Order: sequence, then structure tokens, then C-alpha cells
Amino acid sequence: MALPPTSTAVRIHPGKLADIRVEQLQTPTIVHPDDAIVKVLKAGLCGSDLHAYRGLEPFDAPYICGHELVGEVVALGASFGAASAEGRPALYSKLKVGDKVVSPFTCSCEECHFCRIGFPSRCVHSLLFGSPNLAGAQAQYARIPYAGGTLFLLPPELPKDLPEESFMLCGDILPTGYFAAIQALGHPNVAPIVKGESYPGVIGSIVPKVRGLQAEGARVLKEDRKLSVAIVGLGPVGICALVSLLDILTQNAVPEYTVYAVDPVPARRAKAAAILNKMTPAEAGHVKVLDIDAAKAAVKAETEKGVDAVLEIVGNDSAILLAYDLMRPFGVISSVGVHTSPQFPINGDALYTKNVAASFGRCPVRAMFPLAVDLLVRRRDVLGGVGGEEALVERVIPLSDAVNGYDKFNSMTWGKVVFDPWA
Amino acid sequence: MALPPTSTAVRIHPGKLADIRVEQLQTPTIVHPDDAIVKVLKAGLCGSDLHAYRGLEPFDAPYICGHELVGEVVALGASFGAASAEGRPALYSKLKVGDKVVSPFTCSCEECHFCRIGFPSRCVHSLLFGSPNLAGAQAQYARIPYAGGTLFLLPPELPKDLPEESFMLCGDILPTGYFAAIQALGHPNVAPIVKGESYPGVIGSIVPKVRGLQAEGARVLKEDRKLSVAIVGLGPVGICALVSLLDILTQNAVPEYTVYAVDPVPARRAKAAAILNKMTPAEAGHVKVLDIDAAKAAVKAETEKGVDAVLEIVGNDSAILLAYDLMRPFGVISSVGVHTSPQFPINGDALYTKNVAASFGRCPVRAMFPLAVDLLVRRRDVLGGVGGEEALVERVIPLSDAVNGYDKFNSMTWGKVVFDPWA
Repeated sequence: MALPPTSTAVRIHPGKLADIRVEQLQTPTIVHPDDAIVKVLKAGLCGSDLHAYRGLEPFDAPYICGHELVGEVVALGASFGAASAEGRPALYSKLKVGDKVVSPFTCSCEECHFCRIGFPSRCVHSLLFGSPNLAGAQAQYARIPYAGGTLFLLPPELPKDLPEESFMLCGDILPTGYFAAIQALGHPNVAPIVKGESYPGVIGSIVPKVRGLQAEGARVLKEDRKLSVAIVGLGPVGICALVSLLDILTQNAVPEYTVYAVDPVPARRAKAAAILNKMTPAEAGHVKVLDIDAAKAAVKAETEKGVDAVLEIVGNDSAILLAYDLMRPFGVISSVGVHTSPQFPINGDALYTKNVAASFGRCPVRAMFPLAVDLLVRRRDVLGGVGGEEALVERVIPLSDAVNGYDKFNSMTWGKVVFDPWA
Repeated sequence: MALPPTSTAVRIHPGKLADIRVEQLQTPTIVHPDDAIVKVLKAGLCGSDLHAYRGLEPFDAPYICGHELVGEVVALGASFGAASAEGRPALYSKLKVGDKVVSPFTCSCEECHFCRIGFPSRCVHSLLFGSPNLAGAQAQYARIPYAGGTLFLLPPELPKDLPEESFMLCGDILPTGYFAAIQALGHPNVAPIVKGESYPGVIGSIVPKVRGLQAEGARVLKEDRKLSVAIVGLGPVGICALVSLLDILTQNAVPEYTVYAVDPVPARRAKAAAILNKMTPAEAGHVKVLDIDAAKAAVKAETEKGVDAVLEIVGNDSAILLAYDLMRPFGVISSVGVHTSPQFPINGDALYTKNVAASFGRCPVRAMFPLAVDLLVRRRDVLGGVGGEEALVERVIPLSDAVNGYDKFNSMTWGKVVFDPWA
């Protein structure tokens, strides 16, 4: 299929703040045998697109924005279907023009050490879509490097009542929310509550078995197994973290838990409440949606000690300080926010005194895809709606409305915005 | 048995630096039914005793120093052997005058939530021995609060070739070293290397099983399973961490690993080398004892990406910065050093960019006792020696020599020092 020589894309320009332009640009082409060209069916506008928009990330030349897409393969490099594809990631053999795919927000080769051990967001070839280093997804067409490793092929048997917009959530925010949740719940310091066995034995196989002496250890009681988790930040990623967390707790049949869902912005709390309304009381009944002061008061009154884990989704000083304030000693902070403050606001003495365990950084999206897609399909009643105050994807707009979309999303007037490049 | 009304103790006095005095003080007595009085057989001098000595921790009144002891029970409060002991920690029923015990460096009740889930160093009743809040162990007698929870009863069948001094190591440094190692090796971010399964599936049971889709995930290859760990700081705790780490790796039959044991002080590196000389080449051959520059160069040359985990035993800015520098993306920092710097030297952007997972704080010693005692017994050829350059416990001195002992230990002229209060 011959692609049009030019097509529409949204670029940000340097020199002044918030300079978003909708432009006709040369359609991307295959430049490396591992490349694919994808026709973008839907592209997301994400909170981290706003870093450059707000002047927090300097750049020198215009680039195409966006790092979330669901698309259809329209061209493949020579590596695909070649004899050399054997032994390489499966998509080099399998992927065909016409396939529907999702891309993570970074490319990743699936052939380096980091990809193989499950941390593709630190792939040695990793580049961020929608950055000065790699053209983004808010366009009619996008070039995907290392496409056999980067892309995720959507299974053909997916339910028909899930719109394309929903799959676009898998590019970043749903896996990131899921990762925030699993990084906290999977931590050995939370395990005594979830599994009912005391530390360090609960760590499992790596801990040598000690004959006889282990019987001296403390016993976890039923009353100790009241899990408490706070989510700091209820933007779109925070909502995804909330739904993921509830789903994981349900699947693991954790009997007693409370989730403190915290955001200072009323509209965001309202969105969280609307999403929770779509869940059963058996799940939603465990969640308290609160502003910052109310959350501090509730955690103090209800847990005394603090919560077992905090999912920190925001990435600024007040968010990480709130996380520290809310957590119990030996608690866990799972931080997926992008921090730009010049100094980390918690000092070593404070980290020591509360035995903080914290994990920072970018979600390994590609490795989370199976879990995220599975969650999306099973929870499509909650995550799958499009349009309106009660849906995670609040509105779908054409690329031509990008200037307005950025403005409204930046001011938090609009929640999650998705572009339809063909509208 | 009537105790003498006065006995000998080592106190630090406020007002000037390093004011250590050996004094005759009133012998401690039972002040609460849960107390025990222990005749101190051996007491340790630990690096963190030096914080007050060097003026880093202000205090207003003299107190008895020390937080490591092995002792013999000489008096028990009314809770012991009482009808009320039923349902309480076993030692309230079991402990008898004459029993040999070890104490952790903090008291802990074993009856609160934190004790039960395995984090007794954050027991709600926790107090640090040898601090302004609780008289310490560098004395002929010591009072142990919450003794049925705090003390660890040494099994009578222990090998006879292990001197008392060695068991004193269990009060702090051996469990702390063990904890540093297990906190790193038990972290989900290290698990892909140790277990050969990719993230996030390697987290285990908490991760829902996804039918079909999981097959898309990356595969860990044999070449990915070369574990690399750095230990920053080869003081007595660092040595304990090194031996613990090697033992855990051996017990788990981890086939390929390299340990970078790092310290800028030649005498400490020499001590580490001497300890390694007592181990088999099958273990010691995996260890490189290096200064800081050599460690940076070796890690860069041999791993490219950085090490999977760093045990940070020191607790200052250069140590934590070195840990950051040495670790791979998605690596783990297990920090047991006491940090006193007013600002944490790594900012949020750096933590994000390298996907740092870090755990800080005080070892839950009481919970580590079974593992530490078991290690000490099995590895007594390495850990058990007393006296001389090649032993972990370098010298045993009387309390009367405390002023000199503090001075020599502070200047790193002497390694690990133990007091014999009856010499």
C-alpha cells in the first residue's frame, strides 16, 4: 500500500511556552530493516506531554508529540518474515501488514539483557516516543523502531465492545498504573500482610531454611492482615492504578483492605468516584476518595501506624512527602511519577528512621502488556467506556483541535484526551 | 542470687567530645514485671557507638554505652513463669535464671503488630540500648525491658568451639549484614537473575496468571543470569554482609556471580581478604576486594550495565552516591548505614532515570536471629575466631581499658573490639 507523501501531525516548537502546531509533514518511512510504519488509529495526550509544554523540559527543535497509540501496521522493514527472523522476537516472523498493534511509550528491542529480564523501559536501545529523540504518536502515521520487540500484537479474538481508544490506554497509563500497584504489593515488606507469614521467612525461596530455630519467630495474627494502601494522585494513571490494585486484591482474595485514594483536585476525585461507581460494592466499598488533609486524618485515625504501601503517581515534592507521611515504618513507596525537583525532599535520616523501601522510575510497559490487556478485557465495564465525565477516556478529538486539547488538558478542565487522526 | 549493689559500667558524658569514663554505678534492678537482669558475659563496641563519641548525636546526660551483648540471666521479673505468661511470647514461660541469651540492639515486645509481622526494630516499644533512652551493654549487668520478647535463648546444644564473643556478633552486626544481603537478593528486581524468570512474572503468587498472553513475554537466557553484587564498606558489618551473601548464594546454588567488596581503607580490605582466605575458592574466588576507583573500573569493564544490587553499609553521602554509580538500571540498593547528611544526595530525576529500588534503615535483628545463629554455627570457621588480624573479633579487652579501646576503634587502628566485663 502506497502511503501519502505527507500527512498530519502535532508538533511542539521551541522558543516559547505551549507552542503546539498542527502541521502537514512528510509521512515517515522505513529507515531500518527492523522498523514498522503504523497507521495511528488513536493517540493519547498524557500528563508527561505537558512537561515540555510547560517549559520543564528544554528542547531545541520541533518534534511530533505523543507516546500512546493503537494502530494498524501499514509497512514493515526487511527483517520481517526474513530467514533471519528465526530466533528473534516472535513478531519478526509473525507480524503482517493489517495487524492491529499497541506500542509502549518507548521502543525496546526485546533482544538485550534488560528486555529479557523484564525491564524493557531500560532497554539499551530505548527511545521515548514524542521526544526530541523520536517522533511521536500524535500523527496519522508513526515509525516504530525495533518494531518486532516494541509492538504488542492485539489478539484477534478480543471482545468487540472494546473501542480502539481503550487499547490505547495500554501504551502507557494502564500498564504504569498496574506496575505501580504490583511493585508495591509484590514487595517483601508488604508480603507479611498479604501472605500472613512474618519477615524474613515470607521472602521465600532465597531464605535458607533453618531447622528448629525458625519456630522461635513471631506469628502473624489475623488482626495483622488488614492491608492499607494509599494512592497519591488521581489523574488518569492514578485511576488505572486504583482499578489495577482492586483487581489484584480481588484475584488474590485479600480479605481485609482499605485504599485511600488521594487528590487535592475535586474534579479528579469526582472522576475516581465515578469510576468506582461502576465497580461492585465488594470492591469499591474498600476505597475512600479523599483530599490531602482528610487522607492524613483518616490514615492516622484508622491505621495508627500508617499505610503498608503508597502508590505515588504525581512526581513532585509534595506528593513524595505525603507518601512518606502516610506510610508505616517498613512500608513501601512505589513511585512512578517523573520527579524534576533539584533536591530529593526526604533526607537519609528520615529514610533510615522509617525503614523506607522505595522504587522509582519508568514502567517497563512492554513487559506489562499481557497483564494490562488481560485487565482491560476483564474490566472493560470499568475501563472501557469512552466519552463523558464517567469514562476514563473523557473525550476524543481530531488532531486539528490539538491546540485547544492541550490547553484544556493542561488546565485540568478536561480529563484524559484521545486524538483520532482520521476525524 | 543477690547481685552486688554496685558494678562497673562504661558511660559517655556530654559537654565535650569523646568523654568515655569507666565508673562504679548502681547495679540495675527489675523495674517492670517483663524485665530481666542479665550478667553481661561479653559486650561489643560498634561503629554506631561512635556517633555520640564524635559529637554527631547530641545528648544531655551521661548514659551507659553499647548495644551488643551475650549474657546469662540472673534475675527475672514477675511475668516470667506466671500464669499470665500463657499466650505470650514463649520466653515468658521458658526463660530461667542461668540461661544464656543474646539481645538485639533494641528491645522489642514481640506482641505488637510490627514484631508479629517480622519488623521488631520498629516495635512500638522499641528503645535502643546504649542511648539516652536505655542503659547499654558495656557493663557488668544490664536491664532488658520486654525481655520475653527481646532476648534470644541460645540453644544448649551449640558447638563448644564457638566462644561467647562470637554469639555477641548476633546482637547487631551479623544480623545486620545478613539483612543487608537478603534485602537485596530477595527483591523482585534482582529475582530475574537469581530465579531465571522475567519480571513481572517472577514476583510470584501476587501476579495474576494470564492465559495465553504470558507466552508473549521475554525469556531470560543463561547469559543473563550472571549475578553481580557490590558491598560498599568493609567494616565489621560489611564483612558479615559479605559472608552472609556468599552463604546465601551457595545455599541457593547460584552458579555465576561476582561480588565487588569495596572500601577505601587498606586495613579493612586486608581484613576482608583475610576472612576470605578462610573460605573455599569456590566461594572466595567470586569476590574482588577493591578500592573505590578500582571497583568503578572493574564494574564498568566487567558488567557494562552496572551491578544488580549494592549493599550500602556505611551511611554517608559518598557511599550512597557510589552505590548509585555502581548499580544497573532497575538495580537494588540495600542500605543499612545510618545517614546523617542534611540532604539526600541523589535527586528524584536520578532515582527515576535509573529505576532505583532502595531500602533503608535499621535491621529487624530479633527476626533475623534464627538465620544469624544458624549462619554463625555453620560458618564458625570463618566468623568464629577471636583475636588477631584474621579474626572478625579482633581483640577482647576489659572494661577498664574502654577509653583506649574507643580511641583505637575510632581511629580504625583496631577492628571489632569486644569487652569482657569480668576480666
